Amino acid sequence: MARDIILVDPLPRTLDLMMTPDMRARLEALGELVVAEDRPMPDDQVDELLPETVLIIGQTTMPRTRLERARRLKAIINVETNFLPNIDYQFCVERGIWVITPAAAFAEPVAEAALGMALDLSRGITAADRAFRAGTETYGLEGNVDTVPFTRAPVGIIGFGDLGRHLRELIRPFRNTVRVFDPWLPDEIIARADATPATLDEVLARSQFTFVFANVTSENEGFIGAREFALMPKGAAVLLMSRAAVVNFPDMLTAAAFGHIRVATDVFPDEPVAPDDPVRHAPGVLLSAHRTGATRDAFYQLGAMTVADAELILRGLPPQLCRRADPTTAARLRSKPVNIS
Amino acid sequence: MARDIILVDPLPRTLDLMMTPDMRARLEALGELVVAEDRPMPDDQVDELLPETVLIIGQTTMPRTRLERARRLKAIINVETNFLPNIDYQFCVERGIWVITPAAAFAEPVAEAALGMALDLSRGITAADRAFRAGTETYGLEGNVDTVPFTRAPVGIIGFGDLGRHLRELIRPFRNTVRVFDPWLPDEIIARADATPATLDEVLARSQFTFVFANVTSENEGFIGAREFALMPKGAAVLLMSRAAVVNFPDMLTAAAFGHIRVATDVFPDEPVAPDDPVRHAPGVLLSAHRTGATRDAFYQLGAMTVADAELILRGLPPQLCRRADPTTAARLRSKPVNIS
Amino acid sequence: MARDIILVDPLPRTLDLMMTPDMRARLEALGELVVAEDRPMPDDQVDELLPETVLIIGQTTMPRTRLERARRLKAIINVETNFLPNIDYQFCVERGIWVITPAAAFAEPVAEAALGMALDLSRGITAADRAFRAGTETYGLEGNVDTVPFTRAPVGIIGFGDLGRHLRELIRPFRNTVRVFDPWLPDEIIARADATPATLDEVLARSQFTFVFANVTSENEGFIGAREFALMPKGAAVLLMSRAAVVNFPDMLTAAAFGHIRVATDVFPDEPVAPDDPVRHAPGVLLSAHRTGATRDAFYQLGAMTVADAELILRGLPPQLCRRADPTTAARLRSKPVNIS
Amino acid sequence: MARDIILVDPLPRTLDLMMTPDMRARLEALGELVVAEDRPMPDDQVDELLPETVLIIGQTTMPRTRLERARRLKAIINVETNFLPNIDYQFCVERGIWVITPAAAFAEPVAEAALGMALDLSRGITAADRAFRAGTETYGLEGNVDTVPFTRAPVGIIGFGDLGRHLRELIRPFRNTVRVFDPWLPDEIIARADATPATLDEVLARSQFTFVFANVTSENEGFIGAREFALMPKGAAVLLMSRAAVVNFPDMLTAAAFGHIRVATDVFPDEPVAPDDPVRHAPGVLLSAHRTGATRDAFYQLGAMTVADAELILRGLPPQLCRRADPTTAARLRSKPVNIS
Repeated sequence: MARDIILVDPLPRTLDLMMTPDMRARLEALGELVVAEDRPMPDDQVDELLPETVLIIGQTTMPRTRLERARRLKAIINVETNFLPNIDYQFCVERGIWVITPAAAFAEPVAEAALGMALDLSRGITAADRAFRAGTETYGLEGNVDTVPFTRAPVGIIGFGDLGRHLRELIRPFRNTVRVFDPWLPDEIIARADATPATLDEVLARSQFTFVFANVTSENEGFIGAREFALMPKGAAVLLMSRAAVVNFPDMLTAAAFGHIRVATDVFPDEPVAPDDPVRHAPGVLLSAHRTGATRDAFYQLGAMTVADAELILRGLPPQLCRRADPTTAARLRSKPVNIS
Repeated sequence: MARDIILVDPLPRTLDLMMTPDMRARLEALGELVVAEDRPMPDDQVDELLPETVLIIGQTTMPRTRLERARRLKAIINVETNFLPNIDYQFCVERGIWVITPAAAFAEPVAEAALGMALDLSRGITAADRAFRAGTETYGLEGNVDTVPFTRAPVGIIGFGDLGRHLRELIRPFRNTVRVFDPWLPDEIIARADATPATLDEVLARSQFTFVFANVTSENEGFIGAREFALMPKGAAVLLMSRAAVVNFPDMLTAAAFGHIRVATDVFPDEPVAPDDPVRHAPGVLLSAHRTGATRDAFYQLGAMTVADAELILRGLPPQLCRRADPTTAARLRSKPVNIS
Repeated sequence: MARDIILVDPLPRTLDLMMTPDMRARLEALGELVVAEDRPMPDDQVDELLPETVLIIGQTTMPRTRLERARRLKAIINVETNFLPNIDYQFCVERGIWVITPAAAFAEPVAEAALGMALDLSRGITAADRAFRAGTETYGLEGNVDTVPFTRAPVGIIGFGDLGRHLRELIRPFRNTVRVFDPWLPDEIIARADATPATLDEVLARSQFTFVFANVTSENEGFIGAREFALMPKGAAVLLMSRAAVVNFPDMLTAAAFGHIRVATDVFPDEPVAPDDPVRHAPGVLLSAHRTGATRDAFYQLGAMTVADAELILRGLPPQLCRRADPTTAARLRSKPVNIS
Repeated sequence: MARDIILVDPLPRTLDLMMTPDMRARLEALGELVVAEDRPMPDDQVDELLPETVLIIGQTTMPRTRLERARRLKAIINVETNFLPNIDYQFCVERGIWVITPAAAFAEPVAEAALGMALDLSRGITAADRAFRAGTETYGLEGNVDTVPFTRAPVGIIGFGDLGRHLRELIRPFRNTVRVFDPWLPDEIIARADATPATLDEVLARSQFTFVFANVTSENEGFIGAREFALMPKGAAVLLMSRAAVVNFPDMLTAAAFGHIRVATDVFPDEPVAPDDPVRHAPGVLLSAHRTGATRDAFYQLGAMTVADAELILRGLPPQLCRRADPTTAARLRSKPVNIS
C-alpha cells in the first residue's frame, strides 16, 4: 500500500526549533515523517522517497526532473522563508504543487522590536542608561534636549509587506501620519491601512521616523544612499530592519556620525560583524545583532503556520497562512538565506 | 475701572516653558498678566493684587484670610501639578473657586516612555547594544535567550489614573491580558478599559510586565517590597514610573541583582543620584534620570490645558481638561513637589 | 446607637427597575434602606429620617433647611438623571455633600440605537421592508437610488457629552470625518476624540449624517430651525436623540416632507404623541417612541453606577462613575423630568 | 505594429456602471478598449481579437482552444464576481494567465447593511416605526420588551471571507464575543481577528446574532435547517446575507413565525419574489430585496480594483486587490450569476 511521506529537510531550521510536541503530533497525523536535520537530505534518499512524498518541508532542490517523479506531491513549504532559485516554480504551478513559505511568522517579533527601537531613539532610552552608568545623566527637561516624541510624529514605511503592515497596526494608538513607499503595491492597499502612498523622496523628506522593511531585489540594491539620507530632516531616525544591502551602509553611518540622522539597525553588510569593525563605536547608532526576528516564539509560529497550511492542502483546500511563491517576483529577490537559528 | 488681573506665580515652571506665543496671546486676552518668575511672588505684592485678581496660575499660598480678600478670584491653577497643603481647599469649594491642575499633560510622554522601556526589557534592546559595543553580541536565537515577547504577555498596572489609562490605550495592539490594581476606583472604570480589576498580589503574581504609576499617599509608602517582588514570576519586569517611595527601593534592586526580576526605573529615592550610588552599576536595571515626563511638548501641553480651562472658567463654564483638587484625597497625597524643569 | 440610613425616594424609577439582587445586596451592606416607591416619600418621614441619613437615592426636595439637619449626609444620587431646581446645590458644595447622577448609563443604549437609525436612513432598511410588504420593492442598484453609504461619510455631532462621545467611539470603524459642535467644551476635548471642532453652521453644512445629542438650556431652545435645515446638503440625515425642544419641530418635518433632508427622531414635543398627530404619517421620517435609552440593561446600569459610587463615597473617596451637579450649569438646564420607565 | 487590446465583455455590468471617467482613463492608458455592453461579445469578434488581447474584463467563455490562441493574454478579470465553469482554469495557471475577481468590492456595503439590519432586530427599529404609524407605539421601557442589546451580545459568523471579516472589524466597538464557523479556514486566521473558531452547532447555540455570509457549494446546500434553527436560543437573530440556498428557507420562516428566532434576509430562493409570495407578510422577518451589495459605490469599487490590478499585472507584478480563482475550490462553488445591476 502507498505511504504518504512527508519529507522534512529544513536546515537551517530543525523540527524541534519550529514545533512544540502538539504541532508535531498534528504533522505526524498527516503522513510518515522522514527527517534530515544534521545535514541536508542526501540526493539519493530524496530521489528514492519522491514517488511517495506528499509534502516537502524544507529547501530541497527540486528541478523539473525531480518534480516529474513526485507525482503525489502537493506542496513544498520553505521554512527558511526566502525563496531560492533551486525549484522549477513554473512547473510546480502547472502541476498544482503549492510552493509556499510561512515568512509572516517574523512580522510580529520584528515589528515589536522595530517599535521598541523607534521609541528608544525617540526618547533616548539606551543613551540615557549609558549616561547614567557613566555618571553623566541629566534630569528633567535638560535630559530631553534630543527627545523627539514618537506620538503624532510623521512616520515613513519603506516596504509594505507583512512586516510593514504589522508595524502600522502596532503604532495606531500613537496617531502618526504614515507615508508608505512600496512600488509593488497599488495605492488602494496602502490607503486601506490609513496610510498615504508616497514616493521614496517624499517619505524620507517628510518623516521623523522611517522604517525600512524592503527586501533586496536586483533593482533596488543600495537604493538609499548619501543623497537620500541628506533628504531626511535633521534629527530624523532610520530603523533598518530588513537587509543591510538596501542601504549604502557607509553613507548611513556617516550621516549618523555628523548628527544629521539617528540610526537603529538590526542588520549589517557582513555578519557576524568583525571584532574590530568601527561600527561597534559608531555614534548615533543603536546596534542589534540580527536578532529581532529570531525569537523562540517566532520559530514556533513558523511551525504552526506550516502545519495548519499542510492540513488544508492535504484536504484539497488552498493554504491560508503562508505566502505563495510568485514565479515572476521570486526571480527578482536576491536574498541569500541567512542562518539565524 | 476694575482691572482683571491674572497672577502668574508658576515656579518651578515659567511662562516661556509652558506657553508658545499663541497660547500666551490667548491668556493675555483674558486679563492683565502680573508675572513673578525669577522668585516666588513676594507676599506684599500678592496681597496688593488679590482684590483685582480673577485667576492665579501657580502655587501661591492661599489661606482663608487671603481667599476672603480675593473676592473676584475664579480659579487657582497649580502648574507644578502636585497639590500642596498651602491652600484652604474647603473654603475655595465654598466660594466656588476652582482649584485645578493640568497634571494629565504628563500622561502622554510618560506612557510613551513606559512602553519604550517595557519593550527594551522585553527585547533586550539596551543590553544588546551594550554587548555589541563590548564585542560580546550574539546573533539570532542565541541573542534571544532572555527575550520575553511583549505581544500577548500578561500586563499589570498599579495605579489607574491618567498615566495608567493612557498606557492601557497605547498597548491595545499588543493584545495583552491587562490586570489593574487601584483601590480608589470601582471595578466598572477598569472593566470599561477592557482590563480586569485585581488585588495587588494577583497583579504581581500573574503579570510578565507590571507598570507602577501609583502616587505615594500616607497609606501606601513602600507598599511593594521583598514579599511582593518574590510573588512575581521569574523574569518578570517592573516599570517604576511614578515615585520611588511606593516601592522598597533596596528590595527592588536586590530582586533584580538575583536575576529574579528585570527593572526599569525613572525615579530614585534621592535625586540627583549621588555619583557613587551603587545603583549606577546595578545589574538587570534600566536607568532613566526622572526624565520621562519632562519633555518640551509636555510643558507646552501644561500651558495649553491651563489656557483652555481658564477660558472656560472665565466664561462661567466648568473646566474640562484639568483635574480638580478633592479636599479629602488631596490630604492623603504626600508628593513633595519635584523640580523637573 | 446611630443608624446609617439610606433614603430611597427614586420615582419614577424603582429599586427593582434599577437593581439586580446582587446590586441590592451591595447597597444594603452600606446602610439601612428606607424606601418609598409607590409615591414620593412624605415630607414628615423625610424630616424624621434626615438626622440619621447618610445617602439619598432619588429626587427628594432638599432646601437648605433640610440640608442643615442632615448632618451625616454624604451624597444625593439623582436616579432620574436630570438635575432639578429643588436642591440648594451651593450649600451641598459647602458641606461636602456630593450631588451626582448616573446619567451616563443611557449613553450606551442611546448611541447604539442612534447608529442603528443612522444606518437605517443610510441604507433605507425600514423603507425597503415597507416597500417589500407593499409589493413595490426594487432589487439591486435600482433599490439603492437613495442610498448614501455611512462608511466614510462626513458626520456631525451636536452636543459632545457622554452620548456624543460614545457614538463617536462606536463609529470608528466607519472612518468618517467627524465634526463636533459643543460650545461648552474646549477644542482639546474634541480633538482628542479624533474629531474636528466646528461651528453649528459648519457641522450642518458639511455633514451627511448629523446626530443631535444636545440638552435644552435657557439659551438654545429651538436653535435648529428652518435656516439651519436649509444649510444641510440635500439628502443629509438628522438624528434627533436628546430633546425635541432643541429643534423647531415643524420646520424639521417640513424640510423632510420636501425631501431636502431625512429625519430619525426618538423625541417629540408632546409625549405620548396624540393619536391624530400628522407626524405619524410624515414622509421621510423614521419614528421611535422615546425608547432608545429606556432598556432594561440601561436601568440596571443606573443601579450599578449608583451602588459603585455610593461605596466609594462612604469609604471617603470621590465618586468615579456619576456626573457631579455643577451649580452654575445646572441652573441653565431646562429639562423637565420625563417618565420613561 | 501589434496592438494591445483590452477586451471588455462585462455584462451584466457595464463600463459606465463600474468606472468613473478617471478610472476609465487609467484603463485606456493600458491598451485599446474593445467593448461589448449591449450584448455579450459575439464569438467571431472574440476569436478575431484574441491574438492581440492582453486583458479580458468580463465573463467571456475561454476554453483551452481559445486560450491557446490568446498568446499575449495576461489576465481575465471576472467583474460579475462569481467564477463560472466556462474557463479552463488549469490551463490559465499553466500559461501564467491570472484569473481574478474584485469580489471584495461588495464586502464594505454588505457588512455595513448587515450591521444596520442587526441593530434593527436588536432595537426593533423597523417594528417601532411600523407601530408608530399604526398608532400602537409604546414608550420607554414598555417599548423595549423585545430589545436585545447588540453591545456585548455573543455574535456568530458563518463564512469568514471578505464579508465576514469586514463585519467583524465593524463591530469591534460593540465588544461582542465572536464565534466563527468556516471549515475552509485554519483556526489561526480566525484567532487573529480576535474571534473563536467554533463548530456550526456551537455558533448557533451560543450566539444572539448570527450572520450568514457562506457561499453555496455542492456540499453545503441547505445546511441550516429546522434542526439548526432549533439550536438557537429563543429570541436570537439570523442575518442571511449571502445566498438563500445555504438555509432551508421554509424552515427559517417557520422558526420566525413561531417567535423562536428573528430573521433579516437580503436573499430569497426565487428573485424577484412573486407578488403573492407569503414571505411578504412573514412575521418576525425583516425584508430586503437583494440590495445590500448593489450600491453605486460598490460598483465603482469593482472598477477601481479592476484597474489597479490590471496596472500591476501589465507591469509584470502580481495583483493585490482581486481574489484569484483557485481551480480546486472554484469547482465546488455553485453560484449562478445573479443580475443585480
